Amino acid sequence: MPTATLSSSSLTLFPLSSSPTPPRIPCTSTTLTFPSFLVKPTSVRMMGRGSHILPPKAVAIEKETPENERPSTFLRESDGDNHSLSSVRGRFEKMIRDAQDCVCQAIEAADGGGKFKEDVWSRPGGGGGISRVLQDGAVWEKAGVNVSVVYGVMPPEAYRAAKPASSTDSSSDLNHKPGPVPFFAAGISSVLHPKNPFAPTLHFNYRYFETDAPKDTPGAPRQWWFGGGTDLTPAYIFEEDVKHFHSVQKSACDKFDPSFYPRFKKWCDDYFYIKHRGERRGLGGIFFDDLNDYDQEMLLSFATECANSVVPAYLPIIEKRKDVPFTDRHKAWQQLRRGRYVEFNLVYDRGTTFGLKTGGRIESILVSLPLTARWEYDHQPEEGSEEWKLLDACINPKEWI
Amino acid sequence: MPTATLSSSSLTLFPLSSSPTPPRIPCTSTTLTFPSFLVKPTSVRMMGRGSHILPPKAVAIEKETPENERPSTFLRESDGDNHSLSSVRGRFEKMIRDAQDCVCQAIEAADGGGKFKEDVWSRPGGGGGISRVLQDGAVWEKAGVNVSVVYGVMPPEAYRAAKPASSTDSSSDLNHKPGPVPFFAAGISSVLHPKNPFAPTLHFNYRYFETDAPKDTPGAPRQWWFGGGTDLTPAYIFEEDVKHFHSVQKSACDKFDPSFYPRFKKWCDDYFYIKHRGERRGLGGIFFDDLNDYDQEMLLSFATECANSVVPAYLPIIEKRKDVPFTDRHKAWQQLRRGRYVEFNLVYDRGTTFGLKTGGRIESILVSLPLTARWEYDHQPEEGSEEWKLLDACINPKEWI
Repeated sequence: MPTATLSSSSLTLFPLSSSPTPPRIPCTSTTLTFPSFLVKPTSVRMMGRGSHILPPKAVAIEKETPENERPSTFLRESDGDNHSLSSVRGRFEKMIRDAQDCVCQAIEAADGGGKFKEDVWSRPGGGGGISRVLQDGAVWEKAGVNVSVVYGVMPPEAYRAAKPASSTDSSSDLNHKPGPVPFFAAGISSVLHPKNPFAPTLHFNYRYFETDAPKDTPGAPRQWWFGGGTDLTPAYIFEEDVKHFHSVQKSACDKFDPSFYPRFKKWCDDYFYIKHRGERRGLGGIFFDDLNDYDQEMLLSFATECANSVVPAYLPIIEKRKDVPFTDRHKAWQQLRRGRYVEFNLVYDRGTTFGLKTGGRIESILVSLPLTARWEYDHQPEEGSEEWKLLDACINPKEWI
Repeated sequence: MPTATLSSSSLTLFPLSSSPTPPRIPCTSTTLTFPSFLVKPTSVRMMGRGSHILPPKAVAIEKETPENERPSTFLRESDGDNHSLSSVRGRFEKMIRDAQDCVCQAIEAADGGGKFKEDVWSRPGGGGGISRVLQDGAVWEKAGVNVSVVYGVMPPEAYRAAKPASSTDSSSDLNHKPGPVPFFAAGISSVLHPKNPFAPTLHFNYRYFETDAPKDTPGAPRQWWFGGGTDLTPAYIFEEDVKHFHSVQKSACDKFDPSFYPRFKKWCDDYFYIKHRGERRGLGGIFFDDLNDYDQEMLLSFATECANSVVPAYLPIIEKRKDVPFTDRHKAWQQLRRGRYVEFNLVYDRGTTFGLKTGGRIESILVSLPLTARWEYDHQPEEGSEEWKLLDACINPKEWI
């Protein structure tokens, strides 16, 4: 093999003639599982029960194939009544696809330059997804908004572990007839990282899950639940922004149950905790999971309200902060906080870690990572500084409204 | 609480008067465990045995306290013969501290500007460490070289799981008298990230482990092993550099056993595998663990030889590449590969993940992360490009010599 030769002004690299095989760009493995947004994170409730659901390799779905066009629905016809666009499945899929369109349009309009790139895929046995990513725009460094619909099968043990403790249907049938449990899941997941260090990152994710009857026991879905949340991650605190953001979350919650906001606000603070740092990744918002102990229609409306609140909660903040002048110091601090975002997502986020371990669509899963991030050894902001105040609020969660 | 006011030219942030508590800079938890370099990674051999050793919280050591001065040794006097500087413990500690001095001196000389910042700490019951970090130098973006000595106690189950399968001593004593097993461990761990995208990142790590007799059974150490390795992570391939690096590793290995290089080269390729990407983080080197089926003195000499080979294996490459002109495209590719480095370390590296979960010294553990990293959605290098060739070599490991 020839050796590299190098002059100071030009770089001549050797031909890698020993490698007749072109690099196989890593594709997803043939055994796929839950997409990241569907994995039930370690929530307060789940932690309280001391259980981990869905161990890796417990849930198998098919490998995805790229599509040239968006289908009108990812539901499969063989679902019968469940395929109906008026079913909860059908209406949830429509809701998340509308939300995807709405958020992407608002982001493109606010960005004033960047355009989303779209990837559509499907799975042979039904389901699929639409990933949209805007990268290196005028306002956003990286903005990803993904929807996906999954049909899969889980072993009965995973189903039993995953069932909310409050479940009212009988699990004894499953105990008598253990067998694979088909499931349906759909969700929207998004992370929006702006360039300006005074403009906050936003994450939101809303998901719906149903198990079907086991194969030899046709019938109605045995179980369903909703999960999701919206949270804000600024590098600098503008109290009016955080108040506005939390107020919109509270308004959405209060339309349904006055207990929702305080409960889901705390759940959010507990979930987005970077344990090895002793700090949260940001200033929270709302987060919930395993939600099925309310009327199903009510929870569908609640998830819809939450998804529809993303734009009014976030875009006004971006409009105010996107052009604020900043220095290299501000940018470096934003980058350090982006590093924390990476740490949380790769180490703790159940959706990400589960997706990576089980072979989900890697580019969709990791679109949540920022375009750029930074790690300095032993960085400690000066006491009383604006950076210190942000860190304080991440260490000691506050009531913003 | 007053609200933030903002003009276009200056930023006035509100006083966070609601927070009388200063931010507690996250410190390590009071229950500490193995430092990262001591955690036996999921190696080929361990994977073959299908076992995970040392589950989190299985091993407890004390919290560290900062020290103003380096002690002459971190060994504790109560060790008796084991404290002797001529013991394997004593000689291994001397070796890693000499190696730390030697590598740091060579790095500072080659950098020509940056200086290492040193943090020394100890633990009340014995042991401690020295972290040295050079950040934002002329040549290196971030260079960390840490040594540490740990005294701890592990439950007998963890000890049995951790014992190499080839162990020849009797484990029946432990089965008859289950009780906490005291251990001693020492190691050096280093990651060196240069600025120039044509200058490769280097990682090395050498460690020694001993278990003592259980408390009620004084006597000689029951078990010991060596582990470690040195590996190279370039963003661009210069074949002469990779050949040189691997040749030095092979020379070090061949002085002891002709089977070492091929065996440890493959082990390295297998260990530094980013499973969700289907690619290795770099171009490998050598890696070994659980090594105790050779003469102890021979393995001490081998680890010493490997540590002493770091400078001659790496510095000549840096000298050749540190001033090569580069473009933004080259820098962006290096940053993408740094993103892969972060993914490997946070998701797969046993030392890092174990350290984070069990409350090790966070800043020492995460000093392995690069100063800056980048993630682009669905980045695929053009076929035949230099970036493509690097990716090919990470996907399909090659024999370099």
